Amino acid sequence: MSSALLEQLIEAFRVLPGVGQKSAQRMAYHVLERERAGGQRLSNALAEAIEHVGHCSRCRDFSETEVCATCASAARDAHLLCAVESPADRLAIEQATGYRGLYFVLQGRLSPLDGIGPRELGLDGLAARLAEGEVQELIVATNPTVEGEATAHYLAQLARQHGVRPSRLAHGVPLGGELEYVDRGTLSHAFGSRSEMG
Amino acid sequence: MSSALLEQLIEAFRVLPGVGQKSAQRMAYHVLERERAGGQRLSNALAEAIEHVGHCSRCRDFSETEVCATCASAARDAHLLCAVESPADRLAIEQATGYRGLYFVLQGRLSPLDGIGPRELGLDGLAARLAEGEVQELIVATNPTVEGEATAHYLAQLARQHGVRPSRLAHGVPLGGELEYVDRGTLSHAFGSRSEMG
Repeated sequence: MSSALLEQLIEAFRVLPGVGQKSAQRMAYHVLERERAGGQRLSNALAEAIEHVGHCSRCRDFSETEVCATCASAARDAHLLCAVESPADRLAIEQATGYRGLYFVLQGRLSPLDGIGPRELGLDGLAARLAEGEVQELIVATNPTVEGEATAHYLAQLARQHGVRPSRLAHGVPLGGELEYVDRGTLSHAFGSRSEMG
Repeated sequence: MSSALLEQLIEAFRVLPGVGQKSAQRMAYHVLERERAGGQRLSNALAEAIEHVGHCSRCRDFSETEVCATCASAARDAHLLCAVESPADRLAIEQATGYRGLYFVLQGRLSPLDGIGPRELGLDGLAARLAEGEVQELIVATNPTVEGEATAHYLAQLARQHGVRPSRLAHGVPLGGELEYVDRGTLSHAFGSRSEMG
């Protein structure tokens, strides 16, 4: 390598998920050869986002304001609250469904062994919010993993304590999936949860 | 999306090669959730490299100094010059082989239709260098594509004009490759260029 700055840039790219030595090299060369303007924009966008993007005080999603645009919007249905593990999950639901309610982003899942309990997930804030009485249904959209299920169970109890109806996303065979390739756990669950055809 | 800065960051990540909307999202979330320090380093490294990394006046490779470390090194054999298309090719050769000569980075290949001629590849500079008389062998390591071959042909002529011996990397079946899966052009070339076994 003939440039220490270039070497430093390649090393810095490796902080990104899924980027190893080869991809980092390719990115650094690409930016310097063909995309200096875009690289400068990326540098600025990173610095600005890191400095200004914090968490919404209502839903804990990323936000550069005290309360995020979704929570502040009068167009959203405040009777529905959807709890998700991460901002990426929230975005996936927002993009795929027509959901018009509000969100609560846990920023993790219950994991006692890692020291992640109700306090780390901001569940005291969630409890206070459920106690306000506006929320009627808590849609629990944690991931269908062991920890996600444990978190879902905890959230459902919390909802019932405050007279809020908990609900859970349906699990089963994905649309367009072939039974042959669906994992056994999912297939077994889908079989057990079969519904009568109209 | 609840944050304009986050949206801007995701958009900015897409300037990187091989990064689409999904990967850009993942990168932005990853940096903000878990790697703010690394993200800040990346931001700084990008800005510094874009501002300070230019091209070596001898070999045209990336360099933050007028003459790069390789060209300035007394430990390299100045009788050997290896012409490559890109800094990435130069790095691949440097890492894979024990080559101790110098390099010349074309930053492209002859492509008249795209307006890339000898001047754009700095071949006047290369000619002047060959005329100095120090270089004895020009190793032409352009890619085995149509344009790369045309460039190689041009470089070989240039070398001969200055009494320098041109050479070309061997082409054939890759080590560890299976004949069954080698493309027909390569196989045909390897068959025609077979050598007697000792």
